[in-house]
Amino acid sequence: MKNKEITLFYQWIEESDNIIIGSHLNPDGDNLGSLTALYHYLLKLDKNVTWYGEDSVPDDLQFLPNIKMRTTKCKEDYDLFIALDCADINRLGEGRKIFKRSNKTINIDHHKTNTNFADLNIVKDISSTGELLYQILDQGSLSLDTEIATGLFTAISSDTGSFKYDSTKAGTFFAAGHLMEYNIPINKISVNLYQKRSLAKTSLLIEAMKDVEYLNNHEIAIVMVPLDLIDKCHGKQSDTEGIVEFIRDIEPVEIAILLKERRDEVKVSIRTKSYANAISIVIPFGGGGHVRAAGATISGNLLEVKEKIKEVALKELENARNTGC
Amino acid sequence: MKNKEITLFYQWIEESDNIIIGSHLNPDGDNLGSLTALYHYLLKLDKNVTWYGEDSVPDDLQFLPNIKMRTTKCKEDYDLFIALDCADINRLGEGRKIFKRSNKTINIDHHKTNTNFADLNIVKDISSTGELLYQILDQGSLSLDTEIATGLFTAISSDTGSFKYDSTKAGTFFAAGHLMEYNIPINKISVNLYQKRSLAKTSLLIEAMKDVEYLNNHEIAIVMVPLDLIDKCHGKQSDTEGIVEFIRDIEPVEIAILLKERRDEVKVSIRTKSYANAISIVIPFGGGGHVRAAGATISGNLLEVKEKIKEVALKELENARNTGC
Repeated sequence: MKNKEITLFYQWIEESDNIIIGSHLNPDGDNLGSLTALYHYLLKLDKNVTWYGEDSVPDDLQFLPNIKMRTTKCKEDYDLFIALDCADINRLGEGRKIFKRSNKTINIDHHKTNTNFADLNIVKDISSTGELLYQILDQGSLSLDTEIATGLFTAISSDTGSFKYDSTKAGTFFAAGHLMEYNIPINKISVNLYQKRSLAKTSLLIEAMKDVEYLNNHEIAIVMVPLDLIDKCHGKQSDTEGIVEFIRDIEPVEIAILLKERRDEVKVSIRTKSYANAISIVIPFGGGGHVRAAGATISGNLLEVKEKIKEVALKELENARNTGC
Repeated sequence: MKNKEITLFYQWIEESDNIIIGSHLNPDGDNLGSLTALYHYLLKLDKNVTWYGEDSVPDDLQFLPNIKMRTTKCKEDYDLFIALDCADINRLGEGRKIFKRSNKTINIDHHKTNTNFADLNIVKDISSTGELLYQILDQGSLSLDTEIATGLFTAISSDTGSFKYDSTKAGTFFAAGHLMEYNIPINKISVNLYQKRSLAKTSLLIEAMKDVEYLNNHEIAIVMVPLDLIDKCHGKQSDTEGIVEFIRDIEPVEIAILLKERRDEVKVSIRTKSYANAISIVIPFGGGGHVRAAGATISGNLLEVKEKIKEVALKELENARNTGC
């Protein structure tokens, strides 16, 4: 992040009246926390702010101050579009059309694979978009407040698994410490992010785990969620969240694989613990992500996809043993 | 913590050659992390350091640098005994005898209920003994190193549930940030503390959860672990750890109760989420703990104890709704 980028960021905001901020598809804590922070920051600057997002706000993030996915119908043109936490323009969904029509565009993101798709790209390999946005807003003329700090803290906490992943650096902790000084409700944030597993989600986890399959001395673990299991647990698709991390946290497991059945296709989530590369497992299927967390959507039925994934996962395990990552 | 206390701490260490540091019964991450840090600090000062501890090191803390529970046979007398994370002298077990024989004694602890049982008591209501010890060692003449920082970070992370509990303050994050600057292995620490649920522990959790019982619109959840279930899962008593937190994290649950069968008695663990007081539930049975985490050992069989606990838990839920804590 260069001084020139920061200067332009503030200059373009100053020159713009109508600003639209963009959420990505299937928004997560880093995305919605960062949007919450930027939304409140721009409101404090008396800007007209539109929040673009196509998908609904997950239950565990409904607590964010003034959160609601605002609109998918943005007819007008905007002076400035700011995309947050989007590695490429397609993460905006239909929002990419508004993005392209906007007078100026900014892309703030922490994904290594970012395609630099905007007029101004502030991209840094760091724990979270939340930490990057903190660094940016901390250099502004406005002081932060509880709402902004709550958004940023939620973003950072979400994308570091509460300060556990190795993307967590000294600066991540210093950012969190400074944000705590704005009187943020840490208990409320923690309860919402980490202690709010719904009844349906809980029974789905327990039911799915009954049929866990281990490979290679338990270094690989695979769990499947057929569509009818979700019905049986009175759950919904998003209730599969957290299962793959639960599998990863089993002691001998290095590669955790979750297969979620959809009509004619299967959504695959991969987590790795210490040395295997999650991206390598999904790349053959057109997927993407980070070294420790990646995903793909693969056509075929559950059992077919399972066999394909097993093969690639075993290969990655062998490769990673030799090289590590 | 006063300047006078810090001055005495360093003065007494300087005047002492043979120093013994004391671990408490059933040691946890805060205790063993703090001991690891102080052990390495005193070695750097060329002191003869003895580590007192009666119980074995839990699997998830074996990664701490140079950790081993040193000895229970300490015949000689010591110039200085430093107890860490002990609310009262009995937490030292048989070690209290050595404590009493020692020339000088120091008690460093963060429990509100600390009885100030030493010659010098450095007691502060703060996230962890690790954070308190960080504040003390940060004022010393020696610089910290990777081993000391790893111990302190582990202590802080353990006792805050990885920076989630409301005891986590801005200063807790700043301490963690400074410790990160000593090149500590955060991935190794996180994997050991949070991603190392053994196969036996995993199946015990899944099996025990099958018979979860909910009360009062799911605000209370009770899970029992009969002795034969542990055998069935090829587990051991300590494999029940983590189950009660798993129950607490179910969305509507305010009071989580785990009942572990022993011969002729039942060990009870309570966790509360936001407003109920865990201590109130165990006090009638002679138990103790913190507001959000408490425990007791009650004679009787599983079903008898379950009925007794249900009654008190329902009463606490009603009280807490009126008063909160």
